[in-house]
Amino acid sequence: MTDAPDDDLAWETTASEIAYTCPGFDIVRDDVVLPDGTETDYDYLDDDPAVVVLPFTPDGDVVVIEEWRQAVKRVNRGLPAGSVEPDDADLTAAARRELEEETGYVADSLRSLTTLEPANGITNAVHHVFVAEGCTPTGERDLDFNESIRVEETPHEALRDAVREGDCRDGRTALALLYHDAFRPESEGDHA
Amino acid sequence: MTDAPDDDLAWETTASEIAYTCPGFDIVRDDVVLPDGTETDYDYLDDDPAVVVLPFTPDGDVVVIEEWRQAVKRVNRGLPAGSVEPDDADLTAAARRELEEETGYVADSLRSLTTLEPANGITNAVHHVFVAEGCTPTGERDLDFNESIRVEETPHEALRDAVREGDCRDGRTALALLYHDAFRPESEGDHA
Repeated sequence: MTDAPDDDLAWETTASEIAYTCPGFDIVRDDVVLPDGTETDYDYLDDDPAVVVLPFTPDGDVVVIEEWRQAVKRVNRGLPAGSVEPDDADLTAAARRELEEETGYVADSLRSLTTLEPANGITNAVHHVFVAEGCTPTGERDLDFNESIRVEETPHEALRDAVREGDCRDGRTALALLYHDAFRPESEGDHA
Repeated sequence: MTDAPDDDLAWETTASEIAYTCPGFDIVRDDVVLPDGTETDYDYLDDDPAVVVLPFTPDGDVVVIEEWRQAVKRVNRGLPAGSVEPDDADLTAAARRELEEETGYVADSLRSLTTLEPANGITNAVHHVFVAEGCTPTGERDLDFNESIRVEETPHEALRDAVREGDCRDGRTALALLYHDAFRPESEGDHA
């Protein structure tokens, strides 16, 4: 888990440029020197840090969304998520905002679960995962122009079964749920 | 979980082109029509399907690797993984090959755990996750020119603790371990 710059696995970055840009992300190309001295380059997708929210209703159901995912050409069932924005006071505020904007639900409380890199071989994307408790549909949705989102409440166990059976292929949803279930405090009981 | 093409969330793809290419991946730009009729475009990273292997030794330790991850500029501790190649007879063969190439370990047996999309908002990447049992360092490593990899055995519980504490930020490693631990058959006992 070392990140010491003198780790003998480390690459040296000698230059960096934005090689491609689009509304969703940039592609960065770094000139690098490998540990054996080889000079080459390496491209990766530069993405904004994001929040992922696992929202529970007071009854312990999970608020899930369905939305089109163009990269995989299908409707994805999963958790609300989105990029952290400059106006967000902190990550918790970003999670609260994304939850309300995408689902219309407002949380009693949010807490950080963990922070993960979903695919650090190709992108610097970081997912800050939160659990939101006591969520009720009392807020105002505010979708981006290209977002069409269906919202529903699903039993916790049904979502877990979908992950188990491979019916929920969305990695961030599987990770948030499995992390939550594996490490939840004993005192919380079964529902959340 | 529907993927019916007439789902009212579906986007229509009217054209598609490779907008950028590099040795690791392509960027695809699709022209799309949103459900409300808006015409726009959407870029995503086109990645090869990959296998991720959770390898256990006969003693129940996990074979982990450390390698440099240029996208996040640090050494990553995680599981062997790599793209499926044309010569792989099937996904299990790909998992067996990647395990041996990256770690030098050979598995007694492999079985599929699940298939997940790590970040389907930005990429069509798919991770086919396998568990490998009875792994011993009896094979031949064969690294790509830009791979420098340290291999070590770590106690299962230590890796789980690293995931819990956020010391293992590698999403595919966290997912494979948490999925395995959550849904392993009762008969397997604690070690694997």
